[in-house]
Amino acid sequence: MPVIAVDAMGGDFAPDAVVKGVARVSLSTNIECVLVGEEGRIQSILDTVSYDPARIAVHHTPDVIGMGESPKEGLRAKPRSSIALGVGMVASGRAEALVSAGNTGACILACAEGFRKIEGVTKTALAAVYPRQTAYPGQDQLALLLDVGATVRCEAIDLVQFAVMGSAYARRVSKIARPRVGLLNIGAEEFKGGPVLVEAHRRLVALAGIEFVGNIEGNDVATGRADVIVCEGLLGNVVLKLVEGIAEVVTGIASNVVAQRRRWQVGMRLLGRDMREITRLTDYARYGGAPLLGFEHVFIKAHGRSSARAIENAVKVAAKAVRDRVAEEIATGVRALR
Amino acid sequence: MPVIAVDAMGGDFAPDAVVKGVARVSLSTNIECVLVGEEGRIQSILDTVSYDPARIAVHHTPDVIGMGESPKEGLRAKPRSSIALGVGMVASGRAEALVSAGNTGACILACAEGFRKIEGVTKTALAAVYPRQTAYPGQDQLALLLDVGATVRCEAIDLVQFAVMGSAYARRVSKIARPRVGLLNIGAEEFKGGPVLVEAHRRLVALAGIEFVGNIEGNDVATGRADVIVCEGLLGNVVLKLVEGIAEVVTGIASNVVAQRRRWQVGMRLLGRDMREITRLTDYARYGGAPLLGFEHVFIKAHGRSSARAIENAVKVAAKAVRDRVAEEIATGVRALR
Repeated sequence: MPVIAVDAMGGDFAPDAVVKGVARVSLSTNIECVLVGEEGRIQSILDTVSYDPARIAVHHTPDVIGMGESPKEGLRAKPRSSIALGVGMVASGRAEALVSAGNTGACILACAEGFRKIEGVTKTALAAVYPRQTAYPGQDQLALLLDVGATVRCEAIDLVQFAVMGSAYARRVSKIARPRVGLLNIGAEEFKGGPVLVEAHRRLVALAGIEFVGNIEGNDVATGRADVIVCEGLLGNVVLKLVEGIAEVVTGIASNVVAQRRRWQVGMRLLGRDMREITRLTDYARYGGAPLLGFEHVFIKAHGRSSARAIENAVKVAAKAVRDRVAEEIATGVRALR
Repeated sequence: MPVIAVDAMGGDFAPDAVVKGVARVSLSTNIECVLVGEEGRIQSILDTVSYDPARIAVHHTPDVIGMGESPKEGLRAKPRSSIALGVGMVASGRAEALVSAGNTGACILACAEGFRKIEGVTKTALAAVYPRQTAYPGQDQLALLLDVGATVRCEAIDLVQFAVMGSAYARRVSKIARPRVGLLNIGAEEFKGGPVLVEAHRRLVALAGIEFVGNIEGNDVATGRADVIVCEGLLGNVVLKLVEGIAEVVTGIASNVVAQRRRWQVGMRLLGRDMREITRLTDYARYGGAPLLGFEHVFIKAHGRSSARAIENAVKVAAKAVRDRVAEEIATGVRALR
């Protein structure tokens, strides 16, 4: 079984949620985890829950890069931060993947400094996994949106590689035989979006092995038109945060409703399935975390607000990505581009 | 009172919804409208509703550019289309503003061909008006997002001008004394987003007369952080369509619920205000249409799915924009940039 390094100190509810999530993993799977962080605090949380001690190790460090800290300065000032040590463990082969709910920028930068890119990859991409409507029975409920923040602007070749990397991940981890790839754009026609997107569209049409469904517009982010949506980081980041922002508005309304619990229960029972469809969007715990694609190693970024259950899922996804050799699949796809 | 040209043939429910909307305007205001389109059909709809004949004229043309038609080819093939004639009427002074729910690309192109840009304006911008949460009591419920499709990529100067134009519109039409302007970006820090956004941020900070609140991220599109959100067309278009896409999912759920009407009524009464908060997003009729800013004349783009009530609002907004001299306010702001 793969050994997964887990940044115990990253995330809004760390180390509590992280340690509890890892404890759950130790009981329900045979994945081995190394919790990287403050040993005393980690152990005191472990003491309050049940877990399998044979499957959990602790790698001590007192240093943490805060959620709001500058990634560059944080990594420079704290070479022994939990993120940096986690990356180091994976790079040196002591673990096979890293999971962190910590400072996203610091995670991406630490990976860029510590991991090697897969040969031929021009830019790595952070791929958000999010639920949306499905278009046909049996379609996976989760779609992949990349990049959401490892890049800002992209060239056509980067976007083509994102399509290759996202497809590889969807095939291997989500088990979608022929993931549909869409290029996020201002219009459906192939001449839309300026030179970079026109060129990316042209190359994607010509690319064998990719199920390219063409340009997709903003409204299709919420439908099942594509399983993998490709865009530059600036665009993907705004889209992701917007979806989360709307989800938060819905959550706010939902908790307002919970406050009037009895009326809520009756109302919810009546609206039932439909209301659940909306609030599903807000349930971060269901998402497996966002893979950072293009490196030789696996890194899974869990949401900053991850609960124990979200961490549990992220660790399982990391193990799956290792076992199903996502990096190899990406390497094959990128080689074929040349 | 201003004379407003209205494209009777544009929109998914045209000419029915358009003519009925204009009929309502004639009864509730003293705005004069000229319906541009097929006279026979227009008159037969007018015959079914009450309206003030002193305030409605009809300018006949049989030519229509379809919603899915290529803007360039449509305008070339049909120089007497309702859109082209409407633009011509405004350009020649026979009307003071144009409202259309038709083919957006054709509208923008027809304006570009028929209207003069305000001196100094580098690019015009289509500004979507959308409801979002408010941050303080009394804040306007509608925010302005621009550009959403008149441009694709932008330079820093274009974005700065969008801030000036959006502020002018918000001050004059929405009556917001000091509209807060945000720059849509991948992160809050001023060094984020690449050279163009960094430069735009720098200039906006230095700009007197603009209440610049800095970079805003995707989640803030749904909050009250800014009244005017500035971005390039590619980004704004995706954001707008995404918001609409999510609204449609909600609408789908709502109509599903309506189908079980009795249970729905009970459930809705119980969830009441909260559910309305969500479905508010879907009510296009409440929006006044999207102004195309930067031309010497007023053009208001009504949503393709506009109801009679939406058209009524769009015509009122157009009259307001004329009366409150939005173009003059923009000209003053753009002059001050130099």
